Amino acid sequence: RRMTRPRIGFLIIGDEILSGRTAEKNLPALAAILAEKGLAANETRIVADSPQIIAAALREMRAKCDFVFTSGGIGPTHDDMTADGVALAFDKPAEENKEAAALLADFYARRGLEFTPARRRMARAPQGATILKSEFPGAPGFVVENVFVCAGVPAIFRLMAAAAALRLPDCPRRNAVTLRAECPESELAAALADIQKRYSQLRIGSYPREENGEYFAHLVFDGEDKTAAAAAMQEMAKFLSDNGYASREVNES
Amino acid sequence: RRMTRPRIGFLIIGDEILSGRTAEKNLPALAAILAEKGLAANETRIVADSPQIIAAALREMRAKCDFVFTSGGIGPTHDDMTADGVALAFDKPAEENKEAAALLADFYARRGLEFTPARRRMARAPQGATILKSEFPGAPGFVVENVFVCAGVPAIFRLMAAAAALRLPDCPRRNAVTLRAECPESELAAALADIQKRYSQLRIGSYPREENGEYFAHLVFDGEDKTAAAAAMQEMAKFLSDNGYASREVNES
Repeated sequence: RRMTRPRIGFLIIGDEILSGRTAEKNLPALAAILAEKGLAANETRIVADSPQIIAAALREMRAKCDFVFTSGGIGPTHDDMTADGVALAFDKPAEENKEAAALLADFYARRGLEFTPARRRMARAPQGATILKSEFPGAPGFVVENVFVCAGVPAIFRLMAAAAALRLPDCPRRNAVTLRAECPESELAAALADIQKRYSQLRIGSYPREENGEYFAHLVFDGEDKTAAAAAMQEMAKFLSDNGYASREVNES
Repeated sequence: RRMTRPRIGFLIIGDEILSGRTAEKNLPALAAILAEKGLAANETRIVADSPQIIAAALREMRAKCDFVFTSGGIGPTHDDMTADGVALAFDKPAEENKEAAALLADFYARRGLEFTPARRRMARAPQGATILKSEFPGAPGFVVENVFVCAGVPAIFRLMAAAAALRLPDCPRRNAVTLRAECPESELAAALADIQKRYSQLRIGSYPREENGEYFAHLVFDGEDKTAAAAAMQEMAKFLSDNGYASREVNES
């Protein structure tokens, strides 16, 4: 069976990521969640905390993608602007979402805490949004049409993205195997290009790496056809060995 | 003196980043290099190894940004497609750059290595590109108008981006100070919003963090005015202390 994989966009919202102050950790987490469904992100963008900028990016990404995940900017502080940005992208007002407000009111009541205006701010969402319930009890994400609005804190993002991913179709999983080659890329490029030509059902990539001044390459053989991926990798390992270079399969997480 | 800071885009090219197999390390490095010039990235995109996709992203980013840095896809293997993508974005052919070929030929000759077709591939660039010399001897980056084409390997990217940054104007540096607040964001949101209103020359952000199940917030006070940033932070520290919450200044790298 052949099916068209849906195109997935990921919009990362936050000055702290753009500034380099905070390392981005949600893309690898989302990629792992998507891989379980046989999917992958087709494009990722990182933008500043501004409703206009968020809206412009989201409009462009929605035009190209079947689903868009967002991370960040749904907290209680003045610089959390994702609800406004997403609302603007859909030409809707942002307003208090009744279901989200009820969830949050209950959450704080159970803890004997006041449901302050700052906390209420977390219930703001584009008009017509539905809430994205996850295993994180403190605040819901949101769904607006094909857009999943998730928190930025990695531990919470993962729960929300996993909940959102349940709404995606299951596609044939891809099986990637990785060969670490102790060899300059320029020495293996011709052989690898030849293997790619013969295994056109695979997507073969070569990624130069450096660790402590030592250079090597990760060769990735990626496709639905597990047998072909393994066979292509074996051919490459043999080429390397025949030319005096060490290689070994590695697990990439 | 007031000046308009140029807008900077960063286009990260590579399936390995999109797939989550390789952690993205170049954005924090670029951010640090830009900060030295008083600059910051306005937008970052991560796209797949495809000339059409690279070209489409670059066209959009060039329309919005004064300068665009790219990372990745300039190596010798079949999946390195950045030269073709950038050329397509400028409606130019990709061809062998004479200066780059001479540099590479010299580099390999000095090492007694053959200048093979795979190695020659690294000299491919959009017609009219100039080379971006850096402290990395093995391969040059490229400059096409306002686009700086750099390698993806972090150790090499940093050298190329630093060389490219010499071509950017010097702007007043921003001074960001960060307060770590052992306090839920919702408890400090109102006070922080009030401080932001009174210190409108600053950009104040609140970033929830989680470490080993413990939640805290990094509050960033960012602006050209060092004294104002420090004063705003002190006000927040006093508010937190008055309300029974610990806080301390931290260095973010």
